[in-house]
Amino acid sequence: MADVPIMTTAAEKPIEQGPLEHGGDLEALRHRYPEAPRPWIDLSTGINPVPYSVGDLPAEVWSRLPSRAAEGALLAAAARRYGVGGDAAIVAAPGTQALIQLLPRLRPRSKVAIVGRTYAEHEFCWRREGHAVCVATGLAATDGADVVVIVNPDNPTGRLVPADALRAVKAPLLVVDEAFIDLLPARASLAGGLPGNTVVLRSFGKTYGLAGVRLGFAIASPDLAERLRGALGPWAVSGPALEIGRRALADDSWLDATARRLAADGEKLDTLLRAAGCTVLGGTTLFRLAEHGEVLRVADALARHGIHIRTFTDRPTLLRFGLPANDEEFARLAGALQVPQNV
Amino acid sequence: MADVPIMTTAAEKPIEQGPLEHGGDLEALRHRYPEAPRPWIDLSTGINPVPYSVGDLPAEVWSRLPSRAAEGALLAAAARRYGVGGDAAIVAAPGTQALIQLLPRLRPRSKVAIVGRTYAEHEFCWRREGHAVCVATGLAATDGADVVVIVNPDNPTGRLVPADALRAVKAPLLVVDEAFIDLLPARASLAGGLPGNTVVLRSFGKTYGLAGVRLGFAIASPDLAERLRGALGPWAVSGPALEIGRRALADDSWLDATARRLAADGEKLDTLLRAAGCTVLGGTTLFRLAEHGEVLRVADALARHGIHIRTFTDRPTLLRFGLPANDEEFARLAGALQVPQNV
Repeated sequence: MADVPIMTTAAEKPIEQGPLEHGGDLEALRHRYPEAPRPWIDLSTGINPVPYSVGDLPAEVWSRLPSRAAEGALLAAAARRYGVGGDAAIVAAPGTQALIQLLPRLRPRSKVAIVGRTYAEHEFCWRREGHAVCVATGLAATDGADVVVIVNPDNPTGRLVPADALRAVKAPLLVVDEAFIDLLPARASLAGGLPGNTVVLRSFGKTYGLAGVRLGFAIASPDLAERLRGALGPWAVSGPALEIGRRALADDSWLDATARRLAADGEKLDTLLRAAGCTVLGGTTLFRLAEHGEVLRVADALARHGIHIRTFTDRPTLLRFGLPANDEEFARLAGALQVPQNV
Repeated sequence: MADVPIMTTAAEKPIEQGPLEHGGDLEALRHRYPEAPRPWIDLSTGINPVPYSVGDLPAEVWSRLPSRAAEGALLAAAARRYGVGGDAAIVAAPGTQALIQLLPRLRPRSKVAIVGRTYAEHEFCWRREGHAVCVATGLAATDGADVVVIVNPDNPTGRLVPADALRAVKAPLLVVDEAFIDLLPARASLAGGLPGNTVVLRSFGKTYGLAGVRLGFAIASPDLAERLRGALGPWAVSGPALEIGRRALADDSWLDATARRLAADGEKLDTLLRAAGCTVLGGTTLFRLAEHGEVLRVADALARHGIHIRTFTDRPTLLRFGLPANDEEFARLAGALQVPQNV
């Protein structure tokens, strides 16, 4: 993936909007473009559009308080999937969002360097707890920080910092948000050889296409893991999430097939975006970041065709595209972009 | 319900064990009583043993991030069900446990009076955030506190303080945990005429028998509600919980039938417990608190028959019984208690 240099200062607005934009966008668009064809295609997220099949669930996952045995089974499946090694411990949460909110509460007032611009929730949550936050243009600019936060690979640029470079970070706490790392080679992740100062965040809902389930993980030293577990409290993860997560994380063949499909669809999307006059700047297996001279015109044309993509109010040349789910959605996207379907 | 005077001081252990006891009990018992008949009957909780039917769920509740529209629909159903009136606002959380953990973080260091002894999580969470906590024997003993916390009706005693007595509490913050109030007359709740200093907590999982869903509510002034909402963060409640909660809370006929069944089963349980030599001290529609001279012998006899009840290590004469689910479970309980089945 290309590395996109994005420079910013702490005073600037982060590249992504506040948290409540995500869910509300599509509903607002539906009102603004009432004539658009249905169903809307939502390419505004980085969520796999072909989800893992939930299947039948035992009645107990709904009726009983989540048990420690069920949580243990989920954690074992997650530790295997993520290759958690050595002394590192793993903790389950109702979404990585809960962990992003929690980490700033476990530290005294600190100097926090966020490698950005990036997904805005990190900055928002550290600031909210009163920490001194600056946005650094790269790892080299984080020297002297008590806490370093990096999204790796980055959202939205896709920039990937090698694990060895992260292992060299000497800050007392290094937070590595690996929300989009699942389908990269295992060596890209820090989960397998976790430095003592590092907490890795892993998201379940994106790769498995099950964002509504609310499930995420922290991989950390036993001490920090215990503090996270205590602060999350008992029964933090729902019964269905424990069951679905355990099944999905143990299913290697589904993940292999998904990796192949997403790789092929990503290339297909790149070809289509280039044919539409976009420059593909980067991305991950679940989205692409593109540049275009007339972002508003493109977003408007797509909305008229019932297609929702991500724009960035303060970076008016960028567009982010999630992956279409199937040939029909690819065809609608090609039509909206006025690209011949045989491209 | 009888009022059980339970006196304590802040230094004493609370009547209920720490949070992690709940989920682990039954698994430990299965190991300790390997010969016990299966399936185990778990009467150790106050959860309705006949759950609301989850039914089919649309794929989107799993796959998409929970939307504001879905949350709004849930909140409207909850506000109607709980009779939320006036200016009061309602907030959804992934279980009341999340709210019990959160409230102590929104106040500066305070003097907190918990009307007890009662469900231990309140005391545990206020202490953890550094507040000065005392356990008061009644409302009259809470004068001078910045925060008053009361579980109403109480768990485990069932003691119910009239709404008017609660409205007279002048502390800056009054927390009323109404986890077991659903099937009492509406006037018992503060939700309909909420004083400005009060936050009411309502539990979804207990009455609807869906503790694994993780859903609870706070009813509070718009200001406090907004702070709770902000601290919970986006997508705190899962997609399935939003959908199931909305359906269940709108279903009046299910609730009516459930109220009738629980009332009848509660009387049946009282009769059975008295025939077994217990004194029924109190309880709610979802459990009974009983006294017996030989608690350990009773609990052991029940465990040998594959029945799990709640005991209290520091109150060695008390037993709490949840409601059996059906005639077969009543028959097994009667047999284990050596009570003729025609009682």
